[in-house]
Amino acid sequence: MWTIGCKNLLNGHRPSERFLKNGFDIVHSNRSQGLTSFNRCEGLSINGEIMENLDINKIAKMIDHTELKSNSGQKKILNLCNEAKMFGFVSVCINPHYVKFAYEQLKGSKVLVCSVVGFPLGMNTSELKALEAKKAARDGAEEIDMVINVGAMRDGKYDFVKNDIRKVVKASNPSHVKVILETCYLTDDEIVRACELAVEAGAHFVKTSTGFGAFGAFPEHIRLMRKTVGPDIGVKASGGIMNFKDAWRMIKAGANRLGTSAGVMILEGAKLYKFAPEAWLKPEIPCHICPSRHATLAKLPKAVFTYYKKKCLTCEHREKYNKFYE
Amino acid sequence: MWTIGCKNLLNGHRPSERFLKNGFDIVHSNRSQGLTSFNRCEGLSINGEIMENLDINKIAKMIDHTELKSNSGQKKILNLCNEAKMFGFVSVCINPHYVKFAYEQLKGSKVLVCSVVGFPLGMNTSELKALEAKKAARDGAEEIDMVINVGAMRDGKYDFVKNDIRKVVKASNPSHVKVILETCYLTDDEIVRACELAVEAGAHFVKTSTGFGAFGAFPEHIRLMRKTVGPDIGVKASGGIMNFKDAWRMIKAGANRLGTSAGVMILEGAKLYKFAPEAWLKPEIPCHICPSRHATLAKLPKAVFTYYKKKCLTCEHREKYNKFYE
Repeated sequence: MWTIGCKNLLNGHRPSERFLKNGFDIVHSNRSQGLTSFNRCEGLSINGEIMENLDINKIAKMIDHTELKSNSGQKKILNLCNEAKMFGFVSVCINPHYVKFAYEQLKGSKVLVCSVVGFPLGMNTSELKALEAKKAARDGAEEIDMVINVGAMRDGKYDFVKNDIRKVVKASNPSHVKVILETCYLTDDEIVRACELAVEAGAHFVKTSTGFGAFGAFPEHIRLMRKTVGPDIGVKASGGIMNFKDAWRMIKAGANRLGTSAGVMILEGAKLYKFAPEAWLKPEIPCHICPSRHATLAKLPKAVFTYYKKKCLTCEHREKYNKFYE
Repeated sequence: MWTIGCKNLLNGHRPSERFLKNGFDIVHSNRSQGLTSFNRCEGLSINGEIMENLDINKIAKMIDHTELKSNSGQKKILNLCNEAKMFGFVSVCINPHYVKFAYEQLKGSKVLVCSVVGFPLGMNTSELKALEAKKAARDGAEEIDMVINVGAMRDGKYDFVKNDIRKVVKASNPSHVKVILETCYLTDDEIVRACELAVEAGAHFVKTSTGFGAFGAFPEHIRLMRKTVGPDIGVKASGGIMNFKDAWRMIKAGANRLGTSAGVMILEGAKLYKFAPEAWLKPEIPCHICPSRHATLAKLPKAVFTYYKKKCLTCEHREKYNKFYE
């Protein structure tokens, strides 16, 4: 197994430390079956078993420590890498410009480098996305977070979307690919379809949001994505995860990876968990965690807004809680 | 002159219609002196002469008709192209994915295709930005709007920023390059420096914003940019230009190009100009058009926020108008 992995790795890629870092050597030879072995090694909450009780170390191992703002200087990235090492996050998620730098900082640690591709619009050409992924993988990124072509997805050009993903998966090999669906611009049916396309194209994760869209991750979308991809593909929640409550809800909904810049705060918050384990999952007002509540015509395509509005108007909670469309 | 232009064009690029479209053939042979001849041909308001009286046709010729949302389908781009032809806008500004499509739609018209590069974060590698620009130019984009590496700019790595721009300028040749500074993340000194770098790197335009940052264009920034680059380089205002009032203020401040999706509305609004030509430039409250007013710690780097706050606290209008920091 080790031999197969090495062969892939040396195929034009910078030698990876993933094998040594995480102590498992069957990841890359096992790619066609998705992330099964990877997730098992990490002890994450999939394969049908949602994490029942809190384990702070396991939560840290789910967090992609993220800094994607265009105005972030090198000092911020250095800080990000140090925090990731200190708290045991699984990776740092950064812009391509910083991949080499972060790789150098993280040498000898277990923390991976995760680069974004076609980010945050996903509207460059497939050819370019593939090149960007290839370069990031060569520079040391062992995870690649790509954005789908949202426009083509909404136009129903599913073959194009699948090929777009497939090209990135191929170019990233042996690095793993997470496919950002930008759920805020899709209806539930489109989210399901996009998940299927990502799986068919050989991706390792589906991911909700870029953090630059109309809104971020919702537990409702995570449940839908987990249900669609099954236990063997990763589900990453990202966008708007600001504290432990948000994080815990995503995990309970089926996420096994979290993209957030509030990783340290999440671990701090987790210490309060023991005082009321049940309370964290109880929504104050159901509508507050419903995507429909956050739909606005100013930011969403008209068809998606109409979809959410219709959903909201026929919802069982409407009478009691939701004043949004009244 | 024509020969030189043609030689450049055929150097690996798709044959351009720019020459025929605009009836001038000295643009590309004249690149080293910036856009002088281009602007003169277009009859735009630079070379020290700010447009004194309204000319709706000239305003239309200043507008890059823009659609950059990730969720925009092909129908929207088709619509954009048709509107651009109908109203005589200078170009359509779109994501790389749609460059080929738009080029086909605009064949035989005077409207140019303008593609964005490294958009909207500008944080991919220089190599990739250059490749993206080259491909867009080859596919028919005669204008390339690139984003600078904002992180490096804020870190004071000016040589890196200049080389980043230079690579794109070189790869785009003979297409023209507009350099997006993302002014919202820069102090006035940094804006001046970034303009100088763009000019030194051979760019043809400086441009304020992506429309995805903390805020868009302000007349104050336009004035500063025009003062820095002089009359021979273009200044494009973009981000938050919603109506004729915004557009007219930018033009009077020194912009000779506007990036906006409200082009049609702007031309409609211009018809009201004659009723009170002076009123359009009179700010209701001076602070409303000051960038300091819009600075928030949530969206800006701390140093930039502090800069704006300090500026605001020592402003002459503070006592009378600005309640923002009180």
